[in-house]
Amino acid sequence: MTVGITQSLHRALQQSPQRIATIAQGRRQTYAEFADRVRRLAGAMRSLGVEKGDRVGILSLNSDRYLEVIMAVFWLGAAINPANTRWSAKELAFSFNDCETTLLFVDDAHLPRMDEVRAESRTLRKVIHLGDGACPADMLDYGQLVAQAEPVDDVRAGGSDLAAVFYTGGTTGFPKGVMISHDGLMGAALNRLAIGYPVGPVYLHAAPIFHLAGALGVWWQFIAGGTHVLLPSFDALQFMETVQSERVTDTLLVPTMIQMVLDHPAYSSFDLTSLTFMVYGASPISETLLDRLSAALPQLSLMQGYGMTELSGCVSYLPPYYHTAQGRAQGKLRSAGRAAALAEIKIVDGDGNEVPRGTVGEIASSGMSAMLGYWGRPEDNARTLRNGWVHSGDGAYMDEEGFIFIVDRMKDMVVSGGENVYSAEVENAILKHPAIAACAVVGIPSEKWGESVHAVVVLKPEQTVSEAELIAHCKGLIANYKCPRSVEVRTELPLSGAGKIQKNKLREPYWADRSRRVA
Amino acid sequence: MTVGITQSLHRALQQSPQRIATIAQGRRQTYAEFADRVRRLAGAMRSLGVEKGDRVGILSLNSDRYLEVIMAVFWLGAAINPANTRWSAKELAFSFNDCETTLLFVDDAHLPRMDEVRAESRTLRKVIHLGDGACPADMLDYGQLVAQAEPVDDVRAGGSDLAAVFYTGGTTGFPKGVMISHDGLMGAALNRLAIGYPVGPVYLHAAPIFHLAGALGVWWQFIAGGTHVLLPSFDALQFMETVQSERVTDTLLVPTMIQMVLDHPAYSSFDLTSLTFMVYGASPISETLLDRLSAALPQLSLMQGYGMTELSGCVSYLPPYYHTAQGRAQGKLRSAGRAAALAEIKIVDGDGNEVPRGTVGEIASSGMSAMLGYWGRPEDNARTLRNGWVHSGDGAYMDEEGFIFIVDRMKDMVVSGGENVYSAEVENAILKHPAIAACAVVGIPSEKWGESVHAVVVLKPEQTVSEAELIAHCKGLIANYKCPRSVEVRTELPLSGAGKIQKNKLREPYWADRSRRVA
Repeated sequence: MTVGITQSLHRALQQSPQRIATIAQGRRQTYAEFADRVRRLAGAMRSLGVEKGDRVGILSLNSDRYLEVIMAVFWLGAAINPANTRWSAKELAFSFNDCETTLLFVDDAHLPRMDEVRAESRTLRKVIHLGDGACPADMLDYGQLVAQAEPVDDVRAGGSDLAAVFYTGGTTGFPKGVMISHDGLMGAALNRLAIGYPVGPVYLHAAPIFHLAGALGVWWQFIAGGTHVLLPSFDALQFMETVQSERVTDTLLVPTMIQMVLDHPAYSSFDLTSLTFMVYGASPISETLLDRLSAALPQLSLMQGYGMTELSGCVSYLPPYYHTAQGRAQGKLRSAGRAAALAEIKIVDGDGNEVPRGTVGEIASSGMSAMLGYWGRPEDNARTLRNGWVHSGDGAYMDEEGFIFIVDRMKDMVVSGGENVYSAEVENAILKHPAIAACAVVGIPSEKWGESVHAVVVLKPEQTVSEAELIAHCKGLIANYKCPRSVEVRTELPLSGAGKIQKNKLREPYWADRSRRVA
Repeated sequence: MTVGITQSLHRALQQSPQRIATIAQGRRQTYAEFADRVRRLAGAMRSLGVEKGDRVGILSLNSDRYLEVIMAVFWLGAAINPANTRWSAKELAFSFNDCETTLLFVDDAHLPRMDEVRAESRTLRKVIHLGDGACPADMLDYGQLVAQAEPVDDVRAGGSDLAAVFYTGGTTGFPKGVMISHDGLMGAALNRLAIGYPVGPVYLHAAPIFHLAGALGVWWQFIAGGTHVLLPSFDALQFMETVQSERVTDTLLVPTMIQMVLDHPAYSSFDLTSLTFMVYGASPISETLLDRLSAALPQLSLMQGYGMTELSGCVSYLPPYYHTAQGRAQGKLRSAGRAAALAEIKIVDGDGNEVPRGTVGEIASSGMSAMLGYWGRPEDNARTLRNGWVHSGDGAYMDEEGFIFIVDRMKDMVVSGGENVYSAEVENAILKHPAIAACAVVGIPSEKWGESVHAVVVLKPEQTVSEAELIAHCKGLIANYKCPRSVEVRTELPLSGAGKIQKNKLREPYWADRSRRVA
């Protein structure tokens, strides 16, 4: 029998029906209550015409209802289409139209965009109001729907059945729908679970669930049968309040969020000692940040994950050991770890052949968690998914022990005077300057070099540095051609929902009337 | 892409080619060397005509060669048929004929049986001599074959592809071939890995690999990428010598074997402190044995697994916590734990409906590790595998927290005067008598009661107890109708390859000229 995500709910119900399943917005419910709502919600959706394989949209901040919707959709064998809450109405409508989503759940925060979404949408038939405020006249009320519906049985979707369509790339062109199977979700969760650290009893969802990175914790905490605590979105103060009040044991953040917590003026007034395990991703953690974090929370085990939507989540992990004083001597901290239990990773050249260790190429990965493909995009599938291997578009090399060192997102590489400049390398050099709090390096047009290296920096409070001084600092650390030609100071960097720096936003003004190569 | 067992070898090769893969009979080889031999052996088998889906037999004690054969068979997408080394030539030939095994690997220990096996076999075309002695004239030499063959590429079998046919039930009638897929093997391994305890670097195979319980450690240690140490078969002294000399960290035993180690006169002269994790199975561990083991090896984490061949291994685990001083207060030590990450378990009545908690019924399990079915036995499949649920034949109840308490193998239950007597309950009572070292309770024919409760006991050294005294002891603990009507003293109990007491051998003489009901 193939296995799907709902199996974890059946098990939790059998082993701990009275354990708290979700804590959100002041509400708490047990697994027995949660499962009852899931069965009814599935019944309600079936009456609304949702069948196995259909796509169901959800446009919402994190909440307990979000998890009910996901599980009820799986209960029917349908697929979730979790919408990026930062997208414009046009982008949202595009994604719903693209994969023919007919039913949408929307929370209060996103009601203002709904008129425009509906005007642009050709496929949405019904919208269900997931919020706590009054239900708009043209929507169905979630609470009523659940209360009145008849519960239905789980159809037991699993294996290669479609579980989700996650849209990606919205800010750099037409979004692409990544089709993920139940095997994909299970595989991604098992990659984490097989590392050998149990998931603790209380997991905090602070990263947005509409990203697969944020959704990972949903699967593994259901499999572990523990409690889900949900923040609507990441906020450093709320994060600390919640860890303290709910005695949170596990979470997933990105280094930018970790920094915000440690930098928060109220940091020292909170007790975060319950936190024992944290997965982080999107980038390696800097030595400086790790030092601060280890000093502040010595009980915390840290693990880095690397992955992407097309891989259903993470396929490599850098286990806690490499973050400890002893393990750091191994020099793997800037790596993204090694292939996890159900994944294979290789570094390939343009023809898909493996390159020697130490040589930079593109990361390709295969295994249980590889996507089924892009929704309705055979050309993108042919390019990205070759013989079961997902080609990531990320540049990296592998060392002799299989550790993967990401040098750059291919699209973030600067090609200047025919030389490849990996922005991450330049950023590392800039960050070593004591005045710099954060930075991003992008390629901007240059008549002479094609692209030239441009640095956008954020200064630490009360610090200054001149352009010339910063460039000179870099010349002391990296080759001349890699050093910034220009420096721009800002008060903050634009961040994506997943907490990544949105380099495209930094690049766009410079490239407005030109076309940039795409790797 | 579906995942198969060979993926773990590719990963180990990428991450630790110079790590020792196998240690056996004085030989050590690295993962690079092991993989080279696997590729060549697969090439050799292909030249001998083995194709995807074919069955390849192996009749051998545990060895590094055993692992090479398994992995090379998987490399070709073929299926292993690991023969029970305790079977007669007739039983062996039956199993080879049954699933049309054409190629067989045999070690020195089993050469004497080969003439008879060949005489009985209709399907065996070639036999490969796996041993270290001289190669018989009518066999192919393993070493030569590997040395001369051209390496071939992995066909990447996985998912629902057939990986193995394990024969079961040979001592109670015609053996049945249990068809196991790669998903099954992976699922069983992941059930262990997802518990949250990493597999340590050095794993000792002491239980026979031809049993799926013994084979489990093969999969999970390959996934973990660590070292396999192999004993030809279990021997308490060799076990201790090997743990000490190789600094073994992990193993799997059955309680009978644990007892033999602790009882061994040389026990105190060995340093077993490297041993940190042990899975045990076949039965719960007694309080007395656990006390002794915890006192002797306080660093050791113990985990009980429950499963069967038809479930590709274990589907429930009792984690280490319940074996600790604190955890034992939960009263779960006599349970077989709870459903693991990729399994579901329910207790059902004769119609397959779930019974209330606390009510005894039959254990049924579904999930990633359920067998594909019995080879060529549609009637057995219809009885055992219903809607994806494997019906185990084991009687158990489940408590409110999902812990499974096995009361008896259905076939071991004694039906006396219309009352069900669970042999395990009677055995527990008998074992509380200070003179008893081991015991087994079986049903023997009774004119009056249909069956009557019969106890076979082994006394501790220099102890005696009369039949009347032992029956009186039981009456103080359990209901009259459950107490033995007769007691037989022996010097030892017959054990199976997996270390289970062979009750059928105790029953047989009594039932020789009668037919006993089969549950």
